[in-house]
Amino acid sequence: MKLATLKTGGRDGTLIVVNRTLTKAVKASDIAPTLQAALDNWKKSEPKLRKLYKLLNAGDAKGIFKLDTKKLASPLPRAYQWADGSAYVNHVELVRKARGAEMPPSFWTDPLMYQGASDSFIGPTAPIEAGSEDWGSDMESEVAVVTDDVPMGIAPTDAAQHIKLVMLVNDVSLRNLIPNELAKGFGFFQSKPASAFSPVAVTPAELGDAWDGGKVKLPLITHLNGDLFGKPNAGVDMTFDFPALIAHAAKTRHLVAGTIIGSGTVSNVDRSSGSSCIAEKRMLETIADGKPSTPFMRFGDRVRIEMFDKNGDSLFGAIDQQVVKYDSSQKTKAA
Amino acid sequence: MKLATLKTGGRDGTLIVVNRTLTKAVKASDIAPTLQAALDNWKKSEPKLRKLYKLLNAGDAKGIFKLDTKKLASPLPRAYQWADGSAYVNHVELVRKARGAEMPPSFWTDPLMYQGASDSFIGPTAPIEAGSEDWGSDMESEVAVVTDDVPMGIAPTDAAQHIKLVMLVNDVSLRNLIPNELAKGFGFFQSKPASAFSPVAVTPAELGDAWDGGKVKLPLITHLNGDLFGKPNAGVDMTFDFPALIAHAAKTRHLVAGTIIGSGTVSNVDRSSGSSCIAEKRMLETIADGKPSTPFMRFGDRVRIEMFDKNGDSLFGAIDQQVVKYDSSQKTKAA
Repeated sequence: MKLATLKTGGRDGTLIVVNRTLTKAVKASDIAPTLQAALDNWKKSEPKLRKLYKLLNAGDAKGIFKLDTKKLASPLPRAYQWADGSAYVNHVELVRKARGAEMPPSFWTDPLMYQGASDSFIGPTAPIEAGSEDWGSDMESEVAVVTDDVPMGIAPTDAAQHIKLVMLVNDVSLRNLIPNELAKGFGFFQSKPASAFSPVAVTPAELGDAWDGGKVKLPLITHLNGDLFGKPNAGVDMTFDFPALIAHAAKTRHLVAGTIIGSGTVSNVDRSSGSSCIAEKRMLETIADGKPSTPFMRFGDRVRIEMFDKNGDSLFGAIDQQVVKYDSSQKTKAA
Repeated sequence: MKLATLKTGGRDGTLIVVNRTLTKAVKASDIAPTLQAALDNWKKSEPKLRKLYKLLNAGDAKGIFKLDTKKLASPLPRAYQWADGSAYVNHVELVRKARGAEMPPSFWTDPLMYQGASDSFIGPTAPIEAGSEDWGSDMESEVAVVTDDVPMGIAPTDAAQHIKLVMLVNDVSLRNLIPNELAKGFGFFQSKPASAFSPVAVTPAELGDAWDGGKVKLPLITHLNGDLFGKPNAGVDMTFDFPALIAHAAKTRHLVAGTIIGSGTVSNVDRSSGSSCIAEKRMLETIADGKPSTPFMRFGDRVRIEMFDKNGDSLFGAIDQQVVKYDSSQKTKAA
């Protein structure tokens, strides 16, 4: 099953069901007005949405319309929780290596995770607003899952059943704001502006063999200004799978339905697959040449993040965003 | 105006208007079903709620009932953003001093802030569930504000107008999980379980002279197991007022209506006013005696957090919570 959210209809948009090939859709308003409402009552809404999905794919649903991804918000335009792991530990090790620091061995057994801002995700094709190019805008191509209610203290072996949807995410980072912010000791805040999610969220079942119960075994494709930047396989070198990340997040508190858990930047030890963020490429350049040569994103730069099934069809639609200058004197809320 | 949320009515509860003396209330369902819904459309809902508040205080509203704070959830049972500052910098300096570390001078000019979990706040009288006493449960008595939509890049001088409500908060911390977690560099996660807010949220106007446009000039009273633990004045030694904290939070992204911004542990340089968390008391003991003597909270311990106006009347009602053992084998969601 594939779900998405139209921008129209209020702050949480309007829930729609999208067909397998991402060409057509139908409103799900009779089942749930928004994706959050569907997740709040997933046991009741899921069978109805699945039935509508079947009708849509057969061309038998009422009110079918042509899907225009430009009209889509992130599947959850705002969420109650966005917790992002850093599950591809070789990526973390590389960060440390580039600055000549050893990575603590515990990083291989204890997941890194940060609490992200979830109040206003931007749409999959919305501009990335930055006040200055000096902030060092960077993409982070990741996979994310959406859970239902997860009880505190859950074991990783019990956590997989709570994964209801899978999405892609561009966890935008402002690289030049990170060092000072992390040095203060309280984690990311200003260095993590609004994230964007893929146009479509899909159920694990929809992924078929590509979903192994804990991770997506497919390449995550990132293009920067039209050039292939990376295609690491999200199912390879993921030290902590999603059930492990969920259990980590739920150790000391319950997680509410609609919680989004991210994988962190997808990265393979095999460097021929490229990178999912500019920072990693710059680290590899630093290790090889003593200094980085790839700049962070400038105004006008465009990033595209997508994942394809075995037949070459886009599974989630594309995150496709351009970095633009934000003028704070306007003081208007972005669309 | 004073607002609160009944637990009944769904995940976001039911919005009620509470009278000045916290004895009576009336449902606001005709205006907005939930506090978040009211905040989503504050310009329209605020005058109507204010009118209902006036009628309630005059005894002229329909459907007035006796207020039972045990039936209240946090004013926002779940929110889209909880960003907690650490605005009482002398408290931060004390933390550093206790472990023999210098505080960077920039801490006096650049606010500390962390992104907190906002998906499932517990009620003002709900138990604090902890898996183990070894986690080192501690209260943090703080003041918090709720904003409407705040545009990215706002100046502190423009931020005050976005403060719509004021609350108290117990930002529970698991002290013994903090060192390892912060050492990983990504900030708090497991060490910050669910926070609890005061029964009632009040408008700045309701605070009268006690609100100076940026902070609350009243003592914040904390009792531990019935004994006075601290009564520092929230209007004294607050290095960054709420408009400054909001501007910090909005530097690189828009903040959505219903964003909660916290002050951090309230603390006065005058130590005779006591402390708002056990950790601070332990630091003072460490500086004086070489080691701490006050233990963190154990199962059965009770914390009460409250603030009174000039006449001695409770402004927000009391946060009153007991630490209890959580049995994860139950795997049931807490009430």
